[in-house]
Amino acid sequence: MPGGAGVRRPDHQTTTQAPADLTAEAVLAPYLRAQAADFLRSLRLHREHSAPTDPGARGAEEAASALRRSARRISGSLHTFRSVLDPVWADQLRTELAWLSGTLAREHAYSTRLVRLLDALHRLSGAALPPARAGGSATPPRPTAPGSSSGAASGAAGQERAALGVGAARAGALLERQLTLARTRAHSAALQALGSSRFHAVADAVALLASEVPLAGGTSAPVPEALLEPAERAEQRLLGAVAALPPDERAEPYNEAQDAPWHQARLLLRLHRYAHEVVLGAPDPVLTGAGQALDLHRDAAEAASAAAAAARTPRIAPATAYALGVLHADQRHGVEAARGAFREAWPYAAAVTAP
Amino acid sequence: MPGGAGVRRPDHQTTTQAPADLTAEAVLAPYLRAQAADFLRSLRLHREHSAPTDPGARGAEEAASALRRSARRISGSLHTFRSVLDPVWADQLRTELAWLSGTLAREHAYSTRLVRLLDALHRLSGAALPPARAGGSATPPRPTAPGSSSGAASGAAGQERAALGVGAARAGALLERQLTLARTRAHSAALQALGSSRFHAVADAVALLASEVPLAGGTSAPVPEALLEPAERAEQRLLGAVAALPPDERAEPYNEAQDAPWHQARLLLRLHRYAHEVVLGAPDPVLTGAGQALDLHRDAAEAASAAAAAARTPRIAPATAYALGVLHADQRHGVEAARGAFREAWPYAAAVTAP
Repeated sequence: MPGGAGVRRPDHQTTTQAPADLTAEAVLAPYLRAQAADFLRSLRLHREHSAPTDPGARGAEEAASALRRSARRISGSLHTFRSVLDPVWADQLRTELAWLSGTLAREHAYSTRLVRLLDALHRLSGAALPPARAGGSATPPRPTAPGSSSGAASGAAGQERAALGVGAARAGALLERQLTLARTRAHSAALQALGSSRFHAVADAVALLASEVPLAGGTSAPVPEALLEPAERAEQRLLGAVAALPPDERAEPYNEAQDAPWHQARLLLRLHRYAHEVVLGAPDPVLTGAGQALDLHRDAAEAASAAAAAARTPRIAPATAYALGVLHADQRHGVEAARGAFREAWPYAAAVTAP
Repeated sequence: MPGGAGVRRPDHQTTTQAPADLTAEAVLAPYLRAQAADFLRSLRLHREHSAPTDPGARGAEEAASALRRSARRISGSLHTFRSVLDPVWADQLRTELAWLSGTLAREHAYSTRLVRLLDALHRLSGAALPPARAGGSATPPRPTAPGSSSGAASGAAGQERAALGVGAARAGALLERQLTLARTRAHSAALQALGSSRFHAVADAVALLASEVPLAGGTSAPVPEALLEPAERAEQRLLGAVAALPPDERAEPYNEAQDAPWHQARLLLRLHRYAHEVVLGAPDPVLTGAGQALDLHRDAAEAASAAAAAARTPRIAPATAYALGVLHADQRHGVEAARGAFREAWPYAAAVTAP
């Protein structure tokens, strides 16, 4: 893709924002040390808020979220800039950080998925409408015309709405039961992980990283722009993945088989965003926007899967299954909308570092 | 709405296309006579194709469709131009033509609704996808990235698709049973109507109309532009109804309560289109396009209702209900898309008669 979203311009001159001396020692090491310090601070906060005397579950959640944020950035940087780091150390820490952030992410994911699905059910069953909107005050006057059947139509609409209402309430209760159970299990797993010796080893490794970054033997001498090549490879992988995304000429919102390349693009965009942060010293708001569209894509796709999974519960009432079908389709349209939002954000992201 | 879709320009000068002498005798009477002749010709064709010796059900359908087409145009013109016609005669014939075209329309409506819903189920359950698209040949290469879970995601997708497939087949069979029964009943009702003395009275009235149009007593003397005022009233009613359509800022595809003003706009657009045909002597392709969007709106809304109604069938399997829920949501998104298509067509329709 010409004129990409990148850290270099197509003519292979560095962008004006990039520091001139892009060595691991000058740029990557301070970045990793700062992220490691954030990680340790979040860990301390999480421990304080998780103490039995502390009432703030909210504080613990925020600390866990900050912990994952640093873990993702360290892990992503170890992946992208592996060539300028001690590779054995980088691979090992990256694996452990992926385990940790994956374990911590699950509880949050189930919790936001439930909120998303209950909100959608509320909206779909019309209960979210304030009485003023549901009532007739905003209805335009109806001039008579031959063959008008609007009276019959609105009667049927009311019936449909009511039918969905009963099923929606049951579907909501079913999803709440299933996702709350999953979240509780994820919470226990996260607590268990945070108390494990495996976790303590990770925390120790990050504490070491906060003071000293293990660079590769051969590259300890400053090589100007040593980080550009790996950052560009990360960008190229992303551009390749975006270019290979299935075309949306003919929107097929229920084609879950097409989700995988989109999920892959999300992960590659994240790596590119972090590499961009390392090289240019600050996050790119346009890449952040494109990333949020892909996060929404993932959320909608997983919420749709949860609705479909709930519909496979044995012995549910047809009304419940019907509401779950409506909900599944609604979330799949959310997937489609997120793809559209990404495509809209993307050309802008590509153009932002152009001259 | 300034600069409307109309037969007059906003400064109240007639458009260049309009004939100068817009009297009932010069313009409306020939139009009604031509439509009446079409009606009688279609009726003859329908009788020929409905004879037991004729194998062509297709020919009978086409003739019925042409019959309804003329009946709608006569009925709409009697409504719009009532003031220049014998009002008692106009009201009575209009009522009878509305009964006739309503009765004849039902069989066709059930038949197209079934095709629409079965096509949608086919598309939703993925059976319509050729193997090359469903397979992996178009899948982009997957670079490794930390925390990738795309493998698990596509497994779940396959499961969802298979779950929908079973339910979709059952839902299709259920809809086929219900809508075929409804269509058969509508067919019997149409045959009964066409053999009734009530229908013979309508056919006699139309036969009279083909030779002589009963004009209002006071307006038999030519009054230039006598048709413009009623045609403009029809336009104003349409413009008012379109302006009063609920805003789509916040799309609520499942809000069936908002369908009624859209159905009303469809009927008013039809009246305006026919008035336009009378006054300007030819259909306006832009109004035709806008009308087709509103026809699609009606079709999608009624298909969604049929899916919801099928889901209320007692003792259906949860998988069937789930597929009907997905189908309902899909058709409601079709409603939303049709509204968007109408809004896109509309400003063009407004501009087409502007200088």
